[in-house]
Amino acid sequence: METITVDELIRKEKERLEQQIRFITEADKVKNIFRQTYLADGKRKENDAEHSWHLALSAVLLKEHMKEEADLTKVMIMVLIHDLVEIDAGDTYAYDEAGAATKREREVKAAERIFGLLPEDQGSYFRALWDEFEEYETADAKFAHLLDNFQPLLLNDASEGKSWAEHGVHKSQVCRRNARIEETSELVWEKMLEIMDKHVERGNLNED
Amino acid sequence: METITVDELIRKEKERLEQQIRFITEADKVKNIFRQTYLADGKRKENDAEHSWHLALSAVLLKEHMKEEADLTKVMIMVLIHDLVEIDAGDTYAYDEAGAATKREREVKAAERIFGLLPEDQGSYFRALWDEFEEYETADAKFAHLLDNFQPLLLNDASEGKSWAEHGVHKSQVCRRNARIEETSELVWEKMLEIMDKHVERGNLNED
Repeated sequence: METITVDELIRKEKERLEQQIRFITEADKVKNIFRQTYLADGKRKENDAEHSWHLALSAVLLKEHMKEEADLTKVMIMVLIHDLVEIDAGDTYAYDEAGAATKREREVKAAERIFGLLPEDQGSYFRALWDEFEEYETADAKFAHLLDNFQPLLLNDASEGKSWAEHGVHKSQVCRRNARIEETSELVWEKMLEIMDKHVERGNLNED
Repeated sequence: METITVDELIRKEKERLEQQIRFITEADKVKNIFRQTYLADGKRKENDAEHSWHLALSAVLLKEHMKEEADLTKVMIMVLIHDLVEIDAGDTYAYDEAGAATKREREVKAAERIFGLLPEDQGSYFRALWDEFEEYETADAKFAHLLDNFQPLLLNDASEGKSWAEHGVHKSQVCRRNARIEETSELVWEKMLEIMDKHVERGNLNED
């Protein structure tokens, strides 16, 4: 039987806290990764930490509209961490095709480094959640993606389609990117279509 | 027996989604409420959305160090919403005594307006969590307060005590504000003292 002294236990707990602090401090950098979406008031672009906060908050409220039962805690953690890889890999705009080609490789490397700062069990847990998000197969990943797609659309709506207009985005591009929302929640998908059509009419989003 | 048609059910769900969208859009304003704490790189101050994201993320990691068992999901939601009242009431700096006098009244009014945007059940749930946080009695509220106090200390540490130095803060003020951390987690409290003492030595925090 392995014996462990109280001193040894305390030493290990302190070591875990130090690793967690390093990760928490490193994660701070995601507050400086800016996205292409504007805040609702249209005055500046949103960063990844703000975006992730908004998704986790929305998860609590919108869970009731999902077709499949989702695990709220898991989805909240998933969205809180889903963009941390951008600390190293940067933000790739949804409609940037050149960036998309190298995105996966850059992000996997980032995941290894960043989640690797944590105590092994916690790092593996976050990595598994990030992988699950990326694979987009489970009910939880589908809910997380719905949040990740619906929230910028709400901000685009509130900011008069500013980001779409600046990038000359077409409705068909938004539809392609959101092709799997309907299987996750018909109600949310209908609302997304309604918002898109409003901005096509106003000339902020290009008709095809 | 009350009967309800499918059309009526759909109408109600749509109405809930509209209320949730109004709240989600209104909550966006917290991204423009700036705190006195600097980001880890010391380059700019942190806003409430970034701060709340950081607390929810830290909750997942630091739960293991709490003396009392906490409900992670509840604590995450609590920290995600705890500063929304500042949309109307503004941020009151931890060491601003004049602001503190009127803080409670301003914040209660804000809670009524902001949580009142939601469907009644969800608004009441958020309001109850905010009240629980403010009352600072349950294990969950204590954990949320520990996060709310520890995270800015970590950012102060990373940014060379910039915010403390700017406001001429004394160690005794930080200790008073964090008086209840020791009963929540001795390990975290010890770390906080270690950080404070380092910055007293460096002249960023005033000795008493």
